[in-house]
Amino acid sequence: MIVRRILLNGATFTALFLPFGSISAQSPVPSPGRWLMTGDFYGSRRYMPLELSGTADKLTGTAFGMTLSGSVRNGHLTLAGTNTSGDTAAVDATVGQDKLTGTIKQTSPRDAPVEFSFTAEPVPPLPTAKPQRHEFTPTVFYRQFSPFNAPVLRINPSDTVHTTTVDAGGNDEQGRKRVAGGNPETGPFYVNGAMPGDTLAVHIVRLRLNRDWAGSDDAIVESGLNSAMAVRMKGTGDSVRWRLDREHNVAYSESAGEHLKQFAVPMRPMLGCIATATGPGGAPPGTGDSGFFGGNMDFNGMTEGTTVYLPVSNPGALLYVGDGHAAMGDGEITGNALETSMDVEFSVDLIQHKRYSGIRLEDADSIMTMGLYGSLDDAFKEATSVMAEWLASDYKLTPSEIAQVLGTVAEYRVNEVADRNSGIVLRLPKAQLAAISKPPK
Amino acid sequence: MIVRRILLNGATFTALFLPFGSISAQSPVPSPGRWLMTGDFYGSRRYMPLELSGTADKLTGTAFGMTLSGSVRNGHLTLAGTNTSGDTAAVDATVGQDKLTGTIKQTSPRDAPVEFSFTAEPVPPLPTAKPQRHEFTPTVFYRQFSPFNAPVLRINPSDTVHTTTVDAGGNDEQGRKRVAGGNPETGPFYVNGAMPGDTLAVHIVRLRLNRDWAGSDDAIVESGLNSAMAVRMKGTGDSVRWRLDREHNVAYSESAGEHLKQFAVPMRPMLGCIATATGPGGAPPGTGDSGFFGGNMDFNGMTEGTTVYLPVSNPGALLYVGDGHAAMGDGEITGNALETSMDVEFSVDLIQHKRYSGIRLEDADSIMTMGLYGSLDDAFKEATSVMAEWLASDYKLTPSEIAQVLGTVAEYRVNEVADRNSGIVLRLPKAQLAAISKPPK
Amino acid sequence: MIVRRILLNGATFTALFLPFGSISAQSPVPSPGRWLMTGDFYGSRRYMPLELSGTADKLTGTAFGMTLSGSVRNGHLTLAGTNTSGDTAAVDATVGQDKLTGTIKQTSPRDAPVEFSFTAEPVPPLPTAKPQRHEFTPTVFYRQFSPFNAPVLRINPSDTVHTTTVDAGGNDEQGRKRVAGGNPETGPFYVNGAMPGDTLAVHIVRLRLNRDWAGSDDAIVESGLNSAMAVRMKGTGDSVRWRLDREHNVAYSESAGEHLKQFAVPMRPMLGCIATATGPGGAPPGTGDSGFFGGNMDFNGMTEGTTVYLPVSNPGALLYVGDGHAAMGDGEITGNALETSMDVEFSVDLIQHKRYSGIRLEDADSIMTMGLYGSLDDAFKEATSVMAEWLASDYKLTPSEIAQVLGTVAEYRVNEVADRNSGIVLRLPKAQLAAISKPPK
Amino acid sequence: MIVRRILLNGATFTALFLPFGSISAQSPVPSPGRWLMTGDFYGSRRYMPLELSGTADKLTGTAFGMTLSGSVRNGHLTLAGTNTSGDTAAVDATVGQDKLTGTIKQTSPRDAPVEFSFTAEPVPPLPTAKPQRHEFTPTVFYRQFSPFNAPVLRINPSDTVHTTTVDAGGNDEQGRKRVAGGNPETGPFYVNGAMPGDTLAVHIVRLRLNRDWAGSDDAIVESGLNSAMAVRMKGTGDSVRWRLDREHNVAYSESAGEHLKQFAVPMRPMLGCIATATGPGGAPPGTGDSGFFGGNMDFNGMTEGTTVYLPVSNPGALLYVGDGHAAMGDGEITGNALETSMDVEFSVDLIQHKRYSGIRLEDADSIMTMGLYGSLDDAFKEATSVMAEWLASDYKLTPSEIAQVLGTVAEYRVNEVADRNSGIVLRLPKAQLAAISKPPK
Repeated sequence: MIVRRILLNGATFTALFLPFGSISAQSPVPSPGRWLMTGDFYGSRRYMPLELSGTADKLTGTAFGMTLSGSVRNGHLTLAGTNTSGDTAAVDATVGQDKLTGTIKQTSPRDAPVEFSFTAEPVPPLPTAKPQRHEFTPTVFYRQFSPFNAPVLRINPSDTVHTTTVDAGGNDEQGRKRVAGGNPETGPFYVNGAMPGDTLAVHIVRLRLNRDWAGSDDAIVESGLNSAMAVRMKGTGDSVRWRLDREHNVAYSESAGEHLKQFAVPMRPMLGCIATATGPGGAPPGTGDSGFFGGNMDFNGMTEGTTVYLPVSNPGALLYVGDGHAAMGDGEITGNALETSMDVEFSVDLIQHKRYSGIRLEDADSIMTMGLYGSLDDAFKEATSVMAEWLASDYKLTPSEIAQVLGTVAEYRVNEVADRNSGIVLRLPKAQLAAISKPPK
Repeated sequence: MIVRRILLNGATFTALFLPFGSISAQSPVPSPGRWLMTGDFYGSRRYMPLELSGTADKLTGTAFGMTLSGSVRNGHLTLAGTNTSGDTAAVDATVGQDKLTGTIKQTSPRDAPVEFSFTAEPVPPLPTAKPQRHEFTPTVFYRQFSPFNAPVLRINPSDTVHTTTVDAGGNDEQGRKRVAGGNPETGPFYVNGAMPGDTLAVHIVRLRLNRDWAGSDDAIVESGLNSAMAVRMKGTGDSVRWRLDREHNVAYSESAGEHLKQFAVPMRPMLGCIATATGPGGAPPGTGDSGFFGGNMDFNGMTEGTTVYLPVSNPGALLYVGDGHAAMGDGEITGNALETSMDVEFSVDLIQHKRYSGIRLEDADSIMTMGLYGSLDDAFKEATSVMAEWLASDYKLTPSEIAQVLGTVAEYRVNEVADRNSGIVLRLPKAQLAAISKPPK
Repeated sequence: MIVRRILLNGATFTALFLPFGSISAQSPVPSPGRWLMTGDFYGSRRYMPLELSGTADKLTGTAFGMTLSGSVRNGHLTLAGTNTSGDTAAVDATVGQDKLTGTIKQTSPRDAPVEFSFTAEPVPPLPTAKPQRHEFTPTVFYRQFSPFNAPVLRINPSDTVHTTTVDAGGNDEQGRKRVAGGNPETGPFYVNGAMPGDTLAVHIVRLRLNRDWAGSDDAIVESGLNSAMAVRMKGTGDSVRWRLDREHNVAYSESAGEHLKQFAVPMRPMLGCIATATGPGGAPPGTGDSGFFGGNMDFNGMTEGTTVYLPVSNPGALLYVGDGHAAMGDGEITGNALETSMDVEFSVDLIQHKRYSGIRLEDADSIMTMGLYGSLDDAFKEATSVMAEWLASDYKLTPSEIAQVLGTVAEYRVNEVADRNSGIVLRLPKAQLAAISKPPK
Repeated sequence: MIVRRILLNGATFTALFLPFGSISAQSPVPSPGRWLMTGDFYGSRRYMPLELSGTADKLTGTAFGMTLSGSVRNGHLTLAGTNTSGDTAAVDATVGQDKLTGTIKQTSPRDAPVEFSFTAEPVPPLPTAKPQRHEFTPTVFYRQFSPFNAPVLRINPSDTVHTTTVDAGGNDEQGRKRVAGGNPETGPFYVNGAMPGDTLAVHIVRLRLNRDWAGSDDAIVESGLNSAMAVRMKGTGDSVRWRLDREHNVAYSESAGEHLKQFAVPMRPMLGCIATATGPGGAPPGTGDSGFFGGNMDFNGMTEGTTVYLPVSNPGALLYVGDGHAAMGDGEITGNALETSMDVEFSVDLIQHKRYSGIRLEDADSIMTMGLYGSLDDAFKEATSVMAEWLASDYKLTPSEIAQVLGTVAEYRVNEVADRNSGIVLRLPKAQLAAISKPPK
C-alpha cells in the first residue's frame, strides 16, 4: 500500500497558528502557514492557496505561482510580486480574526488586467481524532459531480463510511425509485482538512450486493459496432433483468431462452462511479461523465480492496460514490452492466500538497493508471503517460528504465467504451515492481 | 477444443474420382467433385474453386458464385451460367488426364467483359496417412508472407513439425546472423490438401527458448506517446540486451543500472508471427505486417497451447512462423519485445470449406478473436464483430444473446500497438461458454 | 434557402383553443391541440408533449410514443394506454383554467413502475406579430448552456436581434473584463412558441468586429501533436495579442519578430458558439463544450450569412451566442483563435414538430452537416450520416443515390480539434444539388 | 515555385571524377565525390551512399552516419571508423575501374556483428542535356510500387513525359482490359542521376480525359459508416457507370433514376497514384497502398498544375503514375471515384541530398502537406508536423511563429478514407506566406 494513514500531531499545527510577531488588540496579524483564498472572479468562485511566512513588517506570501512581499500595518495587509514572465499580482486586504478580506489585482504583459474581491481563512490543521466508522443512510442522490451540493456528512481522513448506493436508474435496495436515473450518487462527503491541491485516496473496504436483481439491456454501444456488427444488432435494445443469486454468487438473465438458460455470470461487485467534485469555476459534469475527477470510470477492477487516487478541487474534497454493478464485462459494451444497488464501505486518506498528472489506482496485486479520452488510442497514450509519471516520481526510474518496465510487464485492458470517454487501464504487477529499488519518499 | 483431427476415409475420395458416365479412349471426362481452376487473369494468378457434378451430357458446375450448365463432348467441356445480377460466365476447355485447359469469359451489365486462360486440376483427397512428427532445420528465411516462396516442407493435416525460428533481427540460436532483420520466417510449410476457401488451424504444441539472450530497446512507439510522454522519452532509443535465465525462467536487462538490477521479468515464450501466405493476386505483405492472414500479430497469448485459425488462400496454405519473444508486455510498446530465437513445435489441422470472418484463437481456457486495424477503436469493433459471428455461427446465439454474453464476461486486452495495425483481443472464458447449450455442428 | 419565415394565421390557432364539447361553469374541459406537460420526475424536470383530441366523453391523447384514451368528468381527466412492447401509461389530472395538475404512472414489463406529478399547459399559438428588430445590450454573461438561466429577452420567430458578445476571455468591446473566461455567452433568448421537439433556425445576419485587438496564443493543442511535433513545440504557450486592422480587414501579430512582421491574416469574423439550452433533466454543458445542442462548434464557416439548425429542448428554445473570432485557421489548432468581442445581428425561425438527427447548417452556396465526436474518425462518420439523413428526408434520395452524390461532390473539412469534441464539416454545393429533382416538402 | 530546374555545368562534374593523386596503370584509385555502395545484406539489397575525399594515402569516407579513415594501397581500399555510440564500421575493397568490390563489417556494443559483401560505383554527374519531351506508350502495367520492375523509360531531370494510364480496373482508353485491377501503374520511369537520399519533384503538366466513361460504385466505405449509416446502406454495392461529357466537362450517372437524371458532376481530372519505388530491403507495397513513397494518395487536388515531392529510395527513383479519376468527392468515400483512363503529361526535377520528413505538395496557390495514417486523427497530426518542419526549414520560422501561422490560415481537408491509410491535407495559401520574409536557401 502506498497510502499511509497520516495521523498528524495536533500540537505542531496549533503552534503554526500562533500569529506573527506580537499580538496587539487593535491590529490582528494573520498567522503563518497555509491559507485558502476564495475569490469572486468576475462571477466565478476561485480557490487560491496562499502560504504566509515572515513577520508583520516583512511578510512573504506564496501564491499564483510567484512569491509576494509586503507587510501588515494597522490591520491592513499588502503583498505584491512579479514573476519572470512579467505577470504581477497585488493583494490588498483587511485583516480580521483568522480572516482576510480584500482585493486581488493581476496584470500580465499581454492580457487585460483583472481585479476582484476575495476572502481568506487559514487552512485548519488535519484532524487528529481516532479514526471513526460512520453509518450513513442516504436520503438525497445527486446527478452531477458538483461542488455546489451540500455535504451529506463530514468525515476525517482515515475514517470509514458504511452506506448504500442506488442503481444507475435510481432504484434502491427495496427496488423503490428514489431519483431520476443516470448514475445518481451517494454523497458528497466532506473530508475535513482536504484542500485544493491535495489528493484524496479512496479505499473500497467492502462492497456487497443488497438485493436480488439487476437491470441491464441487450444492445451494443456505438463503440462496439463496425458496419457488420451494426447490421447484425439492428432491432436489439430491450431491457434485460438479471437475477442475482447471492448464495452462489452468480447472475442469470431472467429472459434467457434455451441457449442462455444455464449461462451463469460470476458476480464481482464494483462501483462504476467514484469522484471528487470539480472546481467551482466550471460546469459540473453529469454523473455519466468521467475525467481527471474520476467519475463514471466503469472499471470492473473497482472492487473491494481497490484504492483510487483523486484530485481535491474544493475544500473538503466532496466525494461521491455510485453506479454499482453486480458484474460487468470489459468495456461495459451493452451500455448498462448488471446495474444494482449496493452496500458500500469505504475509507479515505489524504495526501497533502500533491496532485498527480492523472488517475492512479492500486489493489493488493498491482498499481494501475487509467486513461480516459474520446478514443481508445488517446486513452492508451494517457494511461501510459500517467504511469510513466508515477514510475518517474515514486520509483525514480529514468525514461529508458520506464520503457523497459512497460515493454516487459505492462498489461493494458479496455475498461470502458460505453460513455463519452473510452478508457484504458494500464496495470503493473506489484510482484515485479517489488524488485525495483524504490527510494524512500 | 473445437478443432478435431479430420482423418478421412480415402476410399470415399477414390470413388469420387471415377469419371462421369462411360470412359472412352478418345475422350476423357473430368471426374465429379472439387476442382481448382488457376486462371491467368491479365497477368495475375487467380484461384477459382469449381464443383462438378452430373453426367457428360448434362454437366453442372458451381463456380464464381453461380451455377453453370453444359456438357463434355469430344474431349471438350463447355459450361455457362448467369446470376440474378445479370453477370454471366462461360467456361470452355479441353479435357485432359485430370486436367482442364481453356478459357473463361465473364460479363456483367456494367463492367467491361473479361476473358482469360486457365487450367484446372481435381483437388486431391485429404491425406489419410498416420500423423507424423517432422524434424525440420531451416536454411532459408523469408521476409514476406508470400505465395511465391517455394515450400520448405510438405506436411499432412494432423502432422507435427519441430523446428526453430531466428529472432526478429535474423539471428539464430547460436547468435549468428542468418538473414536481414524484420521478422524473418521459418517456412512456408505446404499442408497437403489445403485449398483456397479452407481454414487452417495452427496449434502451438511446444515453445521453448534455445539461447540465453534477447535483444530489445528502450524507446516507446508512437502509439504510446502523447505530448507529455513524447517530451519525456526524447533521446531514448538505444538497444537493450536481456539475459535469459532459463533455469529460473526470468529475464534481466543487461544494461540495468541501480534501479532495475533486481528487476526480473517472468518469461512466457510466444510467437509474434504465424501466417498463411496471402493470395497470388496481390502484393505479399512484409513480415512486419498483419491482417486477415495473421502475420505479425504480436499477441503475448500466442504461447504453448494456443491455436490460431487462419484462412487458406493458396493450395497448401503455405504456413509461416517466426518472431519469437521470450516475454512481452501488452502492446509491444517498446517496438521490440525480448526478441530471441525459438524452439518451436506446432501441428496443423484443416477445416474444409469454411472461412471465418476474421481471426479466431483459442487456448485451454478461452476462445478469442483479434481485431487488427489502423486504430485501437477500429480494432475493438473488429474483435467484437468477429466474436459475434463466432457466437452466432457456432453457438447459434441471437443478437440479443450475443450482447448479454459480451456485456457480462468479455475481456478486452490490447495485444499490439507497435506496428501499422493496432490489435485488440477479445477473450471469452470457456468456463462460461460451457453453460451455453451449443448445438451439434 | 430552406428556411422559410413561417407567418401563421392567428385565427386558425384561436379556433383550436375552443374547448371540447359544451362549456359548463363547474367543470372546465381542456382545449384540443398541443399541450406541454412538465413533470417532476423524481427530482428532475421533464417536458412531455401531449396532443389532445376528441370530446370530453371520448378523449384521445398522444404522448410517450403511444395513444391514450380516456375522458373528462367532473373536472377530472383520465387517460390510459399501452404500446406494443407492453409499456403502459396512465394520466390522472384535475382540469383547471388552461391547466392540468395531476400524476402520471408508467409501467414496463421489465423496469420498476414510476409515478410522478405533473402540470400541463396548452402550447400557445405561434406569434403573428410583424417581425421586429431588437436592440439588446447584454449585462450578464453565462458560462453554461443551461436551461436554468433566466431569459434576457423574449423574441418571436422571424425577429432579428442586434447585440454584442464579449470575447472568450470575458472582455467586452471596451476591453473591460465583464465575466470569467471560457466563452461567456450573450443570452439566453426566449423564442416565443418554440417547444421541445421543434427545431430552431438561427441565421447570422450581420457579424462585425467592434474593437481593434484580439487575444490568442502560440501553443498547438494535443490533437495536433505527434511526437515530433510535441518535442518541437516544447516551451511554447505564450499569449499572443493581435492588432485588428478593420480598415484593411487584416490582423497582425503584435509580438511578431522579423519573420511575421508583414504576415497579414485576412479577417473573416465568425461565432465560435451558437447553442440552444439542453434539456432540464441533465447536466448543463459548459460553454467550452459542443454536441447535439450546437455550442462551442468553432467552425470558421459560421460567418455572416450562415444558418445553423438546432434542436429545441426547452420552451422558448433559450438561445445563446458567443465566442467571436476575428479569424481562425481550420481546427482552431492553437486552442484560441483571434478571440475578440463582436457586434452580432441574428434572426431566428422555427421549424415545428421536427428534430433532425444532427447538426445541419447552410449558407448561400452550400448545405452542410457537422459531426462532433471524440475523434475525427467518429466525427467524419457522424457528419456523413447526418447528411445522408438530410438527403433522404428532404431530397428523397435512395441509399445508392446518396452514395453517388457524396462520392462525387462531398467536401470534408476539419472544423475543430481544440476542444473535447473534434469536428468535421461535410459540405455539398447547392449548385450541384439544384439539379436534383427535389420533391415539394 | 520552390522547385527550380537544376541545369548543372557538366565540366564541374567531369573534374570531380579525376582520380585522387597520380594515376598508375597497376593500381586504380577511386575518384573523390559521391559513390553508391550496394550491399548484399544477408539476402537483402541495401543502398549506402559514400562520400570520398582526401588522397590515396589519407582517404576519408563518409557513410553509415560516421566518418571513416583509411587508404588505397596496391588497388586495395580500407576504411574504418567509430561513432560516439561505439558503433564501428570497416570497409575493405578491391578497387576496379570506377568500381569497388569488397566487404563491410559493422559492430555495435549491443548487437551481433554483421559482415556482408558490396560493390560500389561512383554516382554519375547530373545529366546536362537540354530538357526533352518523351512520348511513351505503355505496354506493361505494374501492381506494386516495386524497385524490382524494369524501368520502361529513362529520362533526365527537367524532362517531360507524355503518356497514358489505364483506369483502376486495368481498362485503357479503348475500354480494353489490359491488366488485373487494383490501380495498375504506368512506369517505372528511371530518372537519370536520382540517388537514394534525394527528393524527386513530380509536376503534373497536363492531365486530360481520353475516353467517355468512368466506372464507380454506390457503396460507402467502412470509414464513412457509423451504425445508423451502416444500417441505411445495407444492400448497396453495385457498380455504377458514369458518362463523361468532355465537351461540357461534366459527368452523369448512367443508371440514374428520376432524382439524379440532371445531376451533373463537374469534372476535375486527377491522379490517384504517384509514387517512387520503395527501397529494395522491404516488401514492395501494392498499388492500393500509400505512405512515405506517395502511392495511392487519392487526393482530388492532385490535378494539372500540382507538384508532389517524393523521396528517392533507389537509383533512378523509379517513378509510377496511375489511377486517374475524372472527378472525386473528398475522401473517395464510395471506394471508387469516377475511375477512368487518362492522358498524362508530367515533368520531373531533382532535389539532391535532401529528404523531407513527409509528403509535400504545391500548386499555384498553396503549399500543402499530407498526413497518411491508420486514422484521421493520426493523419491530422502527421500533416501538421510535416508542415511545421517545412515552415521551420524553408521559412526559418520558430515554433511560436509556426503556431501563429497554422492557427490563423491553415486549411485542413480530408483527402482519403477509402483505403488502409486515411489522409488529411493541410494547405497554406501562398498569398499569406508571401508576406513571410523567407530567407534565401
